[in-house]
Amino acid sequence: MKLLDGKATAAQIQAELAAAVQARKQEGKKIPHLAAILVGNDGGSVSYVTSKVKACEAIGFESTLIRYDETVPEDILLEKVQSLNVDRSIDGFIVQLPLPKHIDELKITQAIDPKKDVDGFHPRNLGNMILNLPGFLPATPAGIMELMRRNNIETEGKNCVILGRSNIVGTPLSIMLARNTNPGNCTVTLAHSKTKNIKALCREADILIAAIGRPNFVTADMVKEGAVIIDVGTTRVDDATRERGWRLVGDVKFDEVAPKTSFISPVPGGVGPMTIASLMMNTLKAMELKAK
Amino acid sequence: MKLLDGKATAAQIQAELAAAVQARKQEGKKIPHLAAILVGNDGGSVSYVTSKVKACEAIGFESTLIRYDETVPEDILLEKVQSLNVDRSIDGFIVQLPLPKHIDELKITQAIDPKKDVDGFHPRNLGNMILNLPGFLPATPAGIMELMRRNNIETEGKNCVILGRSNIVGTPLSIMLARNTNPGNCTVTLAHSKTKNIKALCREADILIAAIGRPNFVTADMVKEGAVIIDVGTTRVDDATRERGWRLVGDVKFDEVAPKTSFISPVPGGVGPMTIASLMMNTLKAMELKAK
Repeated sequence: MKLLDGKATAAQIQAELAAAVQARKQEGKKIPHLAAILVGNDGGSVSYVTSKVKACEAIGFESTLIRYDETVPEDILLEKVQSLNVDRSIDGFIVQLPLPKHIDELKITQAIDPKKDVDGFHPRNLGNMILNLPGFLPATPAGIMELMRRNNIETEGKNCVILGRSNIVGTPLSIMLARNTNPGNCTVTLAHSKTKNIKALCREADILIAAIGRPNFVTADMVKEGAVIIDVGTTRVDDATRERGWRLVGDVKFDEVAPKTSFISPVPGGVGPMTIASLMMNTLKAMELKAK
Repeated sequence: MKLLDGKATAAQIQAELAAAVQARKQEGKKIPHLAAILVGNDGGSVSYVTSKVKACEAIGFESTLIRYDETVPEDILLEKVQSLNVDRSIDGFIVQLPLPKHIDELKITQAIDPKKDVDGFHPRNLGNMILNLPGFLPATPAGIMELMRRNNIETEGKNCVILGRSNIVGTPLSIMLARNTNPGNCTVTLAHSKTKNIKALCREADILIAAIGRPNFVTADMVKEGAVIIDVGTTRVDDATRERGWRLVGDVKFDEVAPKTSFISPVPGGVGPMTIASLMMNTLKAMELKAK
C-alpha cells in the first residue's frame, strides 16, 4: 500500500506556482489575483475559504475575501458577481458553496464570467470539458486527475467505479476519466443511490472513487485486492477528544481498507489539498488566458 | 421480444407536432422555422438533411436548406452562422456534420447561438445538460431517451452499458441515463476502444446501447437474456442486391440478438427517425423559448 499523499503533492504544486510567481515578479508582470465570496458562517465553508486564502498567501498570489451575512439578498450577490466579472484586477473568483436556501446557486454560478470561473462550475466550462475544449475543469475532479498523474497511477483500460453523481465531482469526473487522455481511458461506471448490488460492483473496480459524503461507507469487503482508492468524502463527525469537537471522516473505512490497496488517499490530507491546488492552477491559467 | 419501433414512435411525435402547428396557425401565431446548412455532397449527409427537411414539410414547419460546395472557406461558413444567429425568422438551425477537413467543426459549433442550437452540440447546451438546466439536449441521445420513455422501458436501478464515447452520442447519453430522472437512474458504464473484456461487460447489461459504428459488433453471446438493446450504428455497407448499391447496417447483429432481448431497436427504423423527431421537438421548443 502506498499513500496518495495529497498534502505532499499539493505542496509540490504550490512550490511550482510560487516559483512561477517569483519569475513573473522579476519580469515586472502581473501577479494572479483570486477573489472569494463567502456568505454566512458555516464552519466548513469558513474553513475551506480560509485555506484558499492561505494558499494564495503561501504562493504569492493576491487574494481578496468578500464576506456577506447569511441574510444577504440574491440581487446584492449577483451585483457583486457582475462587478467582479468586469474588475480587471481580479483574474478569477469563486463563490463558496453551499449558499443559503433563499439564494439560487445555479443562478449565481451562471452569472460568473466563464473566463473567471476558476471553480469550473459554469455550464460553459462543463460543456467545454465534454468537448475537450480549453476552459476550467472543476477543481475537485481536476485535483483528483492531477493526484493520479503525479503519482503515476495507470488508468488505461482499468475498471473505474465512481460512487456519487454530483454536478461538481462524480459526474464531471466520470467524463474526465473516460476520455482518451492520460490519466483517462478508463471504463467508467457511475454509481449512485439507485444502484443495485453496489458492494459487488465496487469489488470489480481497479480504481474506486468514493464521493457520496457517507462516513466509512466503503468497507474492506467492497474492495478488490490491489485496487486504487480515492476518498472524496469529508464529513464532520463529533469527536470529543479533539479540542475543536469534531474530526473529518472520509467515505472509506481507511484502517481496514488500506492494507488491501495499492494506493489510497487519506482524509484529511488527500483530495482536499488537491482541490485547493487545482484552484490555484486555474487562477494562474485564468491570468495567462486573459493576457493572450 | 418487442420491437422498439423508432419509425412508429417518431410518426406519433410528428403527428403531435403537426397538431401543435395547426393550433398555432389558427391562433395566428408564428410557425417554427428550421434552417440547415449542408456542405458538400456526402451521401449520408445529403440523405440526413433531406430527411430533416421532409420532416419539416410533413409537420408544417418552415424550413430553409442552405448548400455550399465542399471547398467553401471556413470564414464564409462562420459568416452564415452569424447571420442565422440574428435572423429573427429562423428559430433554430443546424450545420450538418461531418464538415470537410479544412473546416474546424468545433469552431463552427461554438459560433452557433446556444438559443438556436437545436442539435444540442454547443458547449453551453452540453453544460446545461450536466447541470439539468433548461437548454437543448443533443438530438440523438434525446431521441433515445424519448424512445425509451414512450415505450415504457424501466430504467431505474438497471445496469446500462454504453458502447462508444463520442461527444454527440455516448458521452452525453451516459450522463442523461445516470441522472435522477425518468428515464434515468441507471447505473451507467461507458465503454470504448480501450475497454477490456468488453463481451463480459456487455453480458452484465440490462440495457445495452451500441454507438460505435462497427457493423454487427454486438453478437448474441454478448447479450443477457431479456436485455433491452438500442442500436445507434448506421454504417453504409455495399449491397449489390439494392438498387442504390448499399444498405444501412447497425452495430448489432439483429437476427441472432433479437430473440434474446425484451426490446430491441432495428436499423434502419430505430434511433434514426427518433433523432429527427427530437430535432423537430427542439425546434418547436426554440420558438417557444424565444417567444418568452
